[in-house]
Amino acid sequence: MRVVRRNAIDAVLPQIDVVGAMEAAFVAYADGRCVVPPPGELTFQDPPGDVHIKYGYISGDDHFVVKIASGFYDNPALGLSSCDGLMLVFAQRTGALEAILLDEGNLTDIRTAAAGAVCARHLAPAVTRVGVFGSGIQARRQLELLRKETPCRDVMAWGRDKERLATYAAEMGEIGYTVETTTDPDAVTASCNLIVTCTPSTTPLVRAAALRAGTHVTAVGSDTPTKQELESSVIERADVIVADSLSQCRDRGEIHHASDPGSVVQLGDVVAGRATGRTSDDQITVADLTGVAVQDVAIATAVLNALG
Amino acid sequence: MRVVRRNAIDAVLPQIDVVGAMEAAFVAYADGRCVVPPPGELTFQDPPGDVHIKYGYISGDDHFVVKIASGFYDNPALGLSSCDGLMLVFAQRTGALEAILLDEGNLTDIRTAAAGAVCARHLAPAVTRVGVFGSGIQARRQLELLRKETPCRDVMAWGRDKERLATYAAEMGEIGYTVETTTDPDAVTASCNLIVTCTPSTTPLVRAAALRAGTHVTAVGSDTPTKQELESSVIERADVIVADSLSQCRDRGEIHHASDPGSVVQLGDVVAGRATGRTSDDQITVADLTGVAVQDVAIATAVLNALG
Repeated sequence: MRVVRRNAIDAVLPQIDVVGAMEAAFVAYADGRCVVPPPGELTFQDPPGDVHIKYGYISGDDHFVVKIASGFYDNPALGLSSCDGLMLVFAQRTGALEAILLDEGNLTDIRTAAAGAVCARHLAPAVTRVGVFGSGIQARRQLELLRKETPCRDVMAWGRDKERLATYAAEMGEIGYTVETTTDPDAVTASCNLIVTCTPSTTPLVRAAALRAGTHVTAVGSDTPTKQELESSVIERADVIVADSLSQCRDRGEIHHASDPGSVVQLGDVVAGRATGRTSDDQITVADLTGVAVQDVAIATAVLNALG
Repeated sequence: MRVVRRNAIDAVLPQIDVVGAMEAAFVAYADGRCVVPPPGELTFQDPPGDVHIKYGYISGDDHFVVKIASGFYDNPALGLSSCDGLMLVFAQRTGALEAILLDEGNLTDIRTAAAGAVCARHLAPAVTRVGVFGSGIQARRQLELLRKETPCRDVMAWGRDKERLATYAAEMGEIGYTVETTTDPDAVTASCNLIVTCTPSTTPLVRAAALRAGTHVTAVGSDTPTKQELESSVIERADVIVADSLSQCRDRGEIHHASDPGSVVQLGDVVAGRATGRTSDDQITVADLTGVAVQDVAIATAVLNALG
């Protein structure tokens, strides 16, 4: 049994095809080859915090994974990160604990961004401008992984805080993007044809009226029933609606806000070519990502394999 | 963050008042001061295995605990133990991981046995003979911890396998007991007034017709809806019925098999003196233990404190 700290995990990440690993994970999930029970949850009042326990496996794989992720929102006042996390990797044949990955939540950020890259790969049109809602860690990770999915380096980023936006634009400039910033959500929606939303917003940011034909939207931020980044009419207007998990998206994320979401296909089925994604450049496509434990299984397994 | 292996955990256990810790845990649970969501579960078909994830905390305590316990039933053929387990101890104020206790399931065995000792302390009459159903690890742990609860060292043990029973009797002889063995369940039930059942039986072993007045029975083995060690009429005949967790015992253990269990009180309320336990020497009392995550919280916290 090995205990692997974040710096050792970060060191092997460049060797891993995380987007390819997520494609395979979503296909396995859509195939019904995964066991991913509903997550466990602990909530704390004083100080406020929540802990989520996700766990599961792909049948016939070598491993199963238990992830524990926490958010303690008063931590920054103590000089600590508000988010933390670790993954435990066990042998599927014996139950033996093989590794404890003390990734501090970084693998969750990366597997989430990798799902966004999968959506861009399979659903985006030829990208003319990338729109990003949010200026936090996930907004960074999304652009990092999009570099291999599109040659477009022109970005418009929306945020509420101009200072944070400026920092974001500067950091993304360092990895090759030209980032214009705005505090007007419609400015992003109207000028970009690949939009990624990565905020904890509970009021919609992407309005259907502002959306152009030929746009793909990946909604990453909403992972609870109360968060919402897209007007429900965006779902109703979309030509193709894709869910990372049909069952989860009925309860949370964006799709469950729509009164008539119409036909929703599963991301893994699009990746596998069993469901139809975008068929023309002027369609509107939407992907609703709520986060599935199979992504944790896939990235933890990939890291363990890369560690050798 | 520390990783503590089994030998280091075992080394501090003698310093810990595990029975006192369980008393406090059950009182906190009965008080409603605990958050212990339903356990998570993963099951595997080939090879057969199951994994349980229990987690929770006592409000206002320093820690929360996540326990992962597994049973992989083909492991002995590989020279491995079929059961394994670890406990993760986190800070309740920040979510920081403080310790990983690689106890291999031993702390679960001990906290389960300590609950049995709590029942004996609060519900048993003056013990004339101890009856044990089972000859496995838990049957050993129960007698180890009962030594402080009664001066009685006279035991009758039931099991299906005479060889295992003989080994059990010899081992318990080394810690001061005189153990008679039998393959007739009624022989135990009819001659003992403190009975502890620690088997995975799915057919009842303790028959109401064989039970003497003035007996206390602690049912430890049944932790699923299908396992059953006591005839349901034992519950119906008992004068006092105690559950470690009222809500759990409605779904599993012994109480849920009874068509009319009558009034059931919670163990923590008996310990705290808020509910009436045994009031005379000729009553029949039954305690149904299904295992509550607060016991894991309590023992993991006690071990962490003892490690200093």
